[in-house]
Amino acid sequence: MIFIVAGVSGSGKSTIGIKLAEKLKIPFYDGDDFHPEANKAKMKSGTPLNDEDRKPWLENLNKNMREWEQKKGAVLACSALKEDYREILANGIRGPLVWVFLKGTKELLQERMEARKGHFFSPALLDSQLQTIVYPTYSLTVDIALSPDQIVNKIMENSSSEIGLIGLGVMGRSLALNMADKGFVVSVYNRVAPGEETIVKDFIDALEPNQQVRGYTSLPDFVKSLKKPANIIIMVSAGKAVDQVIESLKPYLASGDLIIDCGNSHFEDTGLRTKTLAEAGIEFMGTGVSGGEKGARFGPSIMPGGNPTIYKRVQPVFEQISAKDEDKNPCCTYIGPEGSGHFVKMIHNGIEYAEMQILAEAYFVMKNGLAMNNEQIADEFETWIESGQGSYLLEITVSILRKKEKGTYLLDAILDKAGQKGTGSWSSEFAFRSGIPLNTISEAVQARQVSALKNYRTKMGSLYSLSGESNFSATAKELQQAVYLATMVNHHIGFSAIKEASKERDWNVDLSETARIWTNGCIIRSELMKKLALELQNSEGVLESAWIKERVEDSFESLKKVLSNSILSNIPTPVMNTSLQYLLSITNERLPANLIQAQRDYFGAHTYQRLDGGDEFFHSNWE
Amino acid sequence: MIFIVAGVSGSGKSTIGIKLAEKLKIPFYDGDDFHPEANKAKMKSGTPLNDEDRKPWLENLNKNMREWEQKKGAVLACSALKEDYREILANGIRGPLVWVFLKGTKELLQERMEARKGHFFSPALLDSQLQTIVYPTYSLTVDIALSPDQIVNKIMENSSSEIGLIGLGVMGRSLALNMADKGFVVSVYNRVAPGEETIVKDFIDALEPNQQVRGYTSLPDFVKSLKKPANIIIMVSAGKAVDQVIESLKPYLASGDLIIDCGNSHFEDTGLRTKTLAEAGIEFMGTGVSGGEKGARFGPSIMPGGNPTIYKRVQPVFEQISAKDEDKNPCCTYIGPEGSGHFVKMIHNGIEYAEMQILAEAYFVMKNGLAMNNEQIADEFETWIESGQGSYLLEITVSILRKKEKGTYLLDAILDKAGQKGTGSWSSEFAFRSGIPLNTISEAVQARQVSALKNYRTKMGSLYSLSGESNFSATAKELQQAVYLATMVNHHIGFSAIKEASKERDWNVDLSETARIWTNGCIIRSELMKKLALELQNSEGVLESAWIKERVEDSFESLKKVLSNSILSNIPTPVMNTSLQYLLSITNERLPANLIQAQRDYFGAHTYQRLDGGDEFFHSNWE
Repeated sequence: MIFIVAGVSGSGKSTIGIKLAEKLKIPFYDGDDFHPEANKAKMKSGTPLNDEDRKPWLENLNKNMREWEQKKGAVLACSALKEDYREILANGIRGPLVWVFLKGTKELLQERMEARKGHFFSPALLDSQLQTIVYPTYSLTVDIALSPDQIVNKIMENSSSEIGLIGLGVMGRSLALNMADKGFVVSVYNRVAPGEETIVKDFIDALEPNQQVRGYTSLPDFVKSLKKPANIIIMVSAGKAVDQVIESLKPYLASGDLIIDCGNSHFEDTGLRTKTLAEAGIEFMGTGVSGGEKGARFGPSIMPGGNPTIYKRVQPVFEQISAKDEDKNPCCTYIGPEGSGHFVKMIHNGIEYAEMQILAEAYFVMKNGLAMNNEQIADEFETWIESGQGSYLLEITVSILRKKEKGTYLLDAILDKAGQKGTGSWSSEFAFRSGIPLNTISEAVQARQVSALKNYRTKMGSLYSLSGESNFSATAKELQQAVYLATMVNHHIGFSAIKEASKERDWNVDLSETARIWTNGCIIRSELMKKLALELQNSEGVLESAWIKERVEDSFESLKKVLSNSILSNIPTPVMNTSLQYLLSITNERLPANLIQAQRDYFGAHTYQRLDGGDEFFHSNWE
Repeated sequence: MIFIVAGVSGSGKSTIGIKLAEKLKIPFYDGDDFHPEANKAKMKSGTPLNDEDRKPWLENLNKNMREWEQKKGAVLACSALKEDYREILANGIRGPLVWVFLKGTKELLQERMEARKGHFFSPALLDSQLQTIVYPTYSLTVDIALSPDQIVNKIMENSSSEIGLIGLGVMGRSLALNMADKGFVVSVYNRVAPGEETIVKDFIDALEPNQQVRGYTSLPDFVKSLKKPANIIIMVSAGKAVDQVIESLKPYLASGDLIIDCGNSHFEDTGLRTKTLAEAGIEFMGTGVSGGEKGARFGPSIMPGGNPTIYKRVQPVFEQISAKDEDKNPCCTYIGPEGSGHFVKMIHNGIEYAEMQILAEAYFVMKNGLAMNNEQIADEFETWIESGQGSYLLEITVSILRKKEKGTYLLDAILDKAGQKGTGSWSSEFAFRSGIPLNTISEAVQARQVSALKNYRTKMGSLYSLSGESNFSATAKELQQAVYLATMVNHHIGFSAIKEASKERDWNVDLSETARIWTNGCIIRSELMKKLALELQNSEGVLESAWIKERVEDSFESLKKVLSNSILSNIPTPVMNTSLQYLLSITNERLPANLIQAQRDYFGAHTYQRLDGGDEFFHSNWE
């Protein structure tokens, strides 16, 4: 391990370097001792060195550093003012390589230099050095106003980073700052791509003094800055980008290093990556993170999946940065092996799609069925929150409804064409591949798809003028109950999918713990979720809970009334409808699927089972 | 090309062989001339040859055949009584190799042998030969009672097969017989697998005299029997089995040979296979075939996709075996390139899923809402057929409702747990991957999934006792209209998916032609489909047709009434419901997706568009 203590003349590089080397019991070297005589003379005469003068000196230092690295390591005091110089110094060093920059005011530097005796440096050069110096993004920077002991302790504490993070998008930046806030020393890396040239520098420049973050645009340097075995979070777009980052990282990783994918990767990809990387000795964890930008910054809900022993290495970090539940426990729990963390996050997002659509339908019913304006709808929603039916999504809906720009309601100006990213559709694709029904989620995804056909809808809207009744007789109170019931069914569907997938794959996911870590930090946090965290401790599923059952039965007539009214009044409420259809079907011992089996046997000889026939299959000649 | 004219002594092998060789202008050889003298003496003395005697003789013949094949080919007269002998003869022959067996009654054979002069064969051996001979499945067999000219003409006509078929499952057998009925000479192949040892033999044994089908359990022999370039239908389970068959076929194929996958393969697999095989010089066509066993046997609807020039080679076969529409045109049309044939078949099946579910819901409403018994329901459905709303599925539903076993209705004894194969789920997966909504189809697939949870439903049914109204006020006539409307919406959704997929992939699928070939032969043939074949000639989509629009508006109130009644009476009707929700949404210029966009921008900074903002995207600070 090599420490370079850097800074302008008079910053105390030698003093600190010697003290640090003593403490670490490794040799100390003063870079100035490696100058050719010509350089020393030049400096003594007050002539600044030029880059041509410095090159052989820096190369000589680098050659020596490579040798020191092979032995016990070393502390080197060296000005290293510019990135060009530092590149020469770091060339071929295998690491760890810790950069420490000593930084102080011009006044303090001058004062210290004037007090020196017998030193060949001319104080007149200070101005030149201060003009030249460019502090790197990746160094530890320490204020020289501190005492030497304080400075050395600080270097010792922060000599290598606890955790690395790749990808300084919105979510990556927020997670890095969240970790730095909690006192973790973080290394961050972002590629230098068009439009992203200054992303690392800008991020480091904006740090608060207490945030220990080092920024890299070189992957090997980034990896060298990390404690071993390395723990590296990647936060990039799902899909190819994840594989690209992994591939570019691999050459610099050693056996036992850990990559944690905190993006929204598909759980099957995560399973595959875990397996493939394990073969190369690299640990991999797929980890769901929910809460948007704000959640990531101040406390998300975290769903880590992978090897439980390896997870222990990052557990303190994840638990500290996560949101906290009502009992101050972290909204972060080990989910299970392989892709289980990303699976649970996918279903979280699926539930979210349906919850958003249910609220949109409630808003539409109030607007078109109950002729309420935005303020009235917001007021009504607030009473729902007060009565214990609150949720993050409902809260932001209230804010959205009240939001005005230039005196008019912003919501009314927004195009009714919903976008989507992958996770909602992934949930539905999973449903159809696995045979696990996700009706509310699928219908919500399709509602967005239909909404996206805005031009076609406009055309069809002018072609068709379908007659509708205007006497909507359900009340806002009944609508509240209808929404509550639809929400309960939607949660049942989501948790059932987790239960079934976990059973099939031996993941052993704890439904109650999953609900608990969703009580804060994530987008679907709600009062209902808090209740589910308790209920699912003893109940096999959401609808199996006695508490839920009572509420379902209470709200049942209201949902039916709202839906039949909406149908007669031509108000589309696809997800609320689907939730009722699902409830009617799943609580119905007898469905008309016997006719479907008969049809299949009739035209395709697919056979059927009998109510009284056990597991036997029958075929009839129907004609 | 080598012809082997075979049969017992006295069957006329030499006479026919010489005549055939003259006609084909190739040499004739008599196998007996190749016997070692020892064999000849043995035969003259009336001692039957044993297999040890025959071996050198057959090997010598085979050696000569390999040489003849290199020149002009030849006709060989040879008894070839047993498969062991034939294997030696065929060993290493590149083909074509045509086997002709002359077959006659014992009386006729004796009569002819007694009339012979100067022949060294002893008539006493006839019995031994008749006991020994095993006719192969793969030969052309001709009755010696015919005149020599007739026999030679028959051999000339059927010397190699028009088309080959691999996979003698239910659908494969039916297609092969259908082709043979239409006068095509067909070679069929099936692997010899446990439980399938006699499948080829059983199939050939059961043929009618007019059906020219040759059966193989050897792939190279099968390929050799086909006209060049070869046209080979494969009819095996979708997935790995298709690739396995292709891989095992490839070594025997030549450039320009064509494989036609008539199974229910995924259209993306078909696209990939078309591309991969083209690189190896092999043509590939994915072709949808609908109609079940009966359709395949007597006239299916056929949806060929692939290279249009290559398609011309099999077009006469496909058009002749397909069902015919009302104007006697074949229910077979070139769909488009790549996987388009299988795509269209997939959507056909998706529509079918929803149609079956809609009928099941109608049955359930009549049973539970209108308290009708099976006979009354069947009577009611018959009036629907009479009034012009008929379909194949409705017709078989009537038969199913009336079907009794031991005095009780069979339908009532069938377990209400619907099975499914791949295509329905594939349609839905496609919907979610592509963003093209397939609401009715997805809901129908999920209805089957929910039905399959029979044990869970039973448990939940005893847990929940949800109150429902009993006064169902919609009439059977209104239900008929409701079903009609749901069906129209379902067809709109299906045809829209074909239109969009075709547009995205430049397939140029003709919607009207697609509807036309679905008017007969396939499972979703109906009176509505006949109308759509006409309407889609000028209309961009189903709901855009003025004829459809009129019927939609006529039926709209009935659907709403049936659904609101069903909801209040606790009768699940998920697909009818979804069809209304879709209709309400797609004809609605304004949907509440603006709220969803605001929520997404609020928590995830996903931005939104404005009604007045063109293509620009906006982000607001909502707090």
